[in-house]
Amino acid sequence: MMTSLSGFPEFTPEEKILEDSLLATLQRVFELHGFSHLETRAVEPLSVLEKKGETSQEVYTLSRLQDKDSHEPVKNGLHFDLTVPLSRYVLENAHLLQFPFMRYQIQKVWRGERPQEGRFREFVQADIDMIARDTLPVHFEIEAPLIMAEALEALPIPQPVVHVNSRKILQGACNALGISEVDAVLQVIDKHDKVTPEVFSQMLLELQLDDAQVKTIWDLAGISGNEPEVASRVRDLGLKDDLLEEGLDDVARMLVAARARGRENVVADFKIARGLDYYTGMVYETFITGAETYGSICSGGRYDNLVSEGKRCFPGVGMSIGLTRLISIILANNWVEVSRSVPTAVLVLVDSEETRGESDQVAATLRQRGVCTEVSPTAAKYGKQIKYAANRGIPYVWFVSQREVKNILTGEQAVADPQTFEFETQLLKPQVRMQDA
Amino acid sequence: MMTSLSGFPEFTPEEKILEDSLLATLQRVFELHGFSHLETRAVEPLSVLEKKGETSQEVYTLSRLQDKDSHEPVKNGLHFDLTVPLSRYVLENAHLLQFPFMRYQIQKVWRGERPQEGRFREFVQADIDMIARDTLPVHFEIEAPLIMAEALEALPIPQPVVHVNSRKILQGACNALGISEVDAVLQVIDKHDKVTPEVFSQMLLELQLDDAQVKTIWDLAGISGNEPEVASRVRDLGLKDDLLEEGLDDVARMLVAARARGRENVVADFKIARGLDYYTGMVYETFITGAETYGSICSGGRYDNLVSEGKRCFPGVGMSIGLTRLISIILANNWVEVSRSVPTAVLVLVDSEETRGESDQVAATLRQRGVCTEVSPTAAKYGKQIKYAANRGIPYVWFVSQREVKNILTGEQAVADPQTFEFETQLLKPQVRMQDA
Repeated sequence: MMTSLSGFPEFTPEEKILEDSLLATLQRVFELHGFSHLETRAVEPLSVLEKKGETSQEVYTLSRLQDKDSHEPVKNGLHFDLTVPLSRYVLENAHLLQFPFMRYQIQKVWRGERPQEGRFREFVQADIDMIARDTLPVHFEIEAPLIMAEALEALPIPQPVVHVNSRKILQGACNALGISEVDAVLQVIDKHDKVTPEVFSQMLLELQLDDAQVKTIWDLAGISGNEPEVASRVRDLGLKDDLLEEGLDDVARMLVAARARGRENVVADFKIARGLDYYTGMVYETFITGAETYGSICSGGRYDNLVSEGKRCFPGVGMSIGLTRLISIILANNWVEVSRSVPTAVLVLVDSEETRGESDQVAATLRQRGVCTEVSPTAAKYGKQIKYAANRGIPYVWFVSQREVKNILTGEQAVADPQTFEFETQLLKPQVRMQDA
Repeated sequence: MMTSLSGFPEFTPEEKILEDSLLATLQRVFELHGFSHLETRAVEPLSVLEKKGETSQEVYTLSRLQDKDSHEPVKNGLHFDLTVPLSRYVLENAHLLQFPFMRYQIQKVWRGERPQEGRFREFVQADIDMIARDTLPVHFEIEAPLIMAEALEALPIPQPVVHVNSRKILQGACNALGISEVDAVLQVIDKHDKVTPEVFSQMLLELQLDDAQVKTIWDLAGISGNEPEVASRVRDLGLKDDLLEEGLDDVARMLVAARARGRENVVADFKIARGLDYYTGMVYETFITGAETYGSICSGGRYDNLVSEGKRCFPGVGMSIGLTRLISIILANNWVEVSRSVPTAVLVLVDSEETRGESDQVAATLRQRGVCTEVSPTAAKYGKQIKYAANRGIPYVWFVSQREVKNILTGEQAVADPQTFEFETQLLKPQVRMQDA
């Protein structure tokens, strides 16, 4: 990964093969679940970008270079996430869409933040969202983390674990405890794992909570597990609130569904709060086993009022993978090995420039069979042409006048017909392999 | 195609399936020829963007919204093509790359132009380039249009025809005729098909050419064909110049190579000039048979000095497809039919919310077999659930308690096991079919 412009990462061809393999895996899993591919324009009016609040100060605005001396107000900027554009797209095109609308979207987003380790100004997000008209049954909230767990598990990373909570539980607990400053309490809960119990208590005391309230919040935030019985541990705290009960039922159903599919890496975790204020139901964060310190690699939640306008309301639930960040973690930890830097499986050698046409014909035959093939750029000595292949990790070289093919990884050489020669399947495409731990 | 923000097109889910199918086809052909996938950042320093000249006034510059009251000079902008970023990437990372470096790049670019019919401010380009260190043999110039012809022919459009010329021929003809204002003459030649012979002559006469010079230029620009003998028709004009001869040899070799591969849609056309001043060898434009009035859909050429810095020089050749524009042409002409708007092949019906888990299990089994499957969002009456499938073009519905599957396109219904039922292959994925003319 190179960043000659701070915060704007670029990949080597080998790293791009890794990214493409992750993209293909995510697309495959998302489409297996029926999500449509959506791409929205990168540019949005500032009025749209400022709708959500929170990150609006990080927006990159656009001007035309030739307008630099004009004093027209800036009107447009680059999107900083894929949720705000989705909301705008759905409201604008509701008449063209079928609801529930399930879409995945994998695009670059831009944030004018100060770049730092693992934080980028231009990066790729991979989102799934399910948006209904008027009402969104809870099974969509249950499905989202199960789909993401399946997608992330298919990537070359250690076991991902999706942590699930419900805003209803946190809100309900606050109701039961008579706490009104819910947003401020959520922000403290969000820090549960990052601070000592003393600091945690101190922060809550500063919000005018009493000792009993602080203790209950601390205990609640400490409960987690993937057994449906986890709800009873919350009930043991003695809190009575209808919303709390509803949230606990939702989370318990989610754990039952996960178990029914043999999925143990979706867990309830009552300290998950999520900063964004538009979440209204389940919220999610995802950590990589053994690499939890990198923070959540895939987060989201249910939102009831984000996609709405006047009387039209489209509740939704979504999760977002920080893909560029995930790749930077994979690279930093050397989790994968890419078998070569080019798609090419065969280099057809050239005996002389006069007979290049014969090499072109062998290449055309191989390509028709779906084999990625290059013809040597020069008619240099065989040794030099073979070195061209070796430098790129191309596994096979083809000797045209000899009608022979050589696997330069094993040294095996054989007489061969380009119409019929059987290549080793795993050598036909670059392989992205997880390294042994 | 929707453009609620003028010049910034977006697709419906169905149109996105079309775009994805074009992208997959282009990637497949480019990789068959050994091109590596590259993606560069969208943002470049203005110093890089202004290097090439021509379109620099159309650059979108970036500012951070929170810096809006600062008077710091703007430093960065969005790239307006993929060639300038490639040049910067190659110079910056030459030590990491293998040369010749063959890469394809498919990305959005932005231009602050006034939007008009078929012109966009945000659009996708699909480029291939081959870049060598120090010297680039002519066979790369011959290969580029052959690869692009193959790629474009695989798309759902009428026959594409790549028109090839060489700057050496135009420059050589000017040398032989004693014309010094070559760039101005090139710009007139570029208009050969758009103006009457009288206007063409008038424009050349205004450049101080005499009648004999004008006639020869007119005649040269009128020669085209896909037979290698086309070179002799130029020689009949009686022009004597070494560069001209070199260019004619190059184009003749290209036609021989095209013929050897049975490819008739790569033609010599001596009026192709290309506006950009950095081309030094072959130049290319591509037209769709019967839709020539849309102009070139894929253009490019050889450049010797674009990727250079001090003593380091990387001559290259490349071609670029205006993909968003091509899709707008496909849509405007109704050339294709997309069989459905979602990836989903099967909708598993739900008998009741209590038994949703059983439907989930059928879906999981089908997905494990690679079949894109949704579970019905509600346990409504079967008729309503089947309508959900029909509205999206989902071909199969699965009745869980009955253990039956129905093809709702044909009405066929049968007892079935999710582990083994054989779906019709062409119904498993959305099909993009060319319409009968």
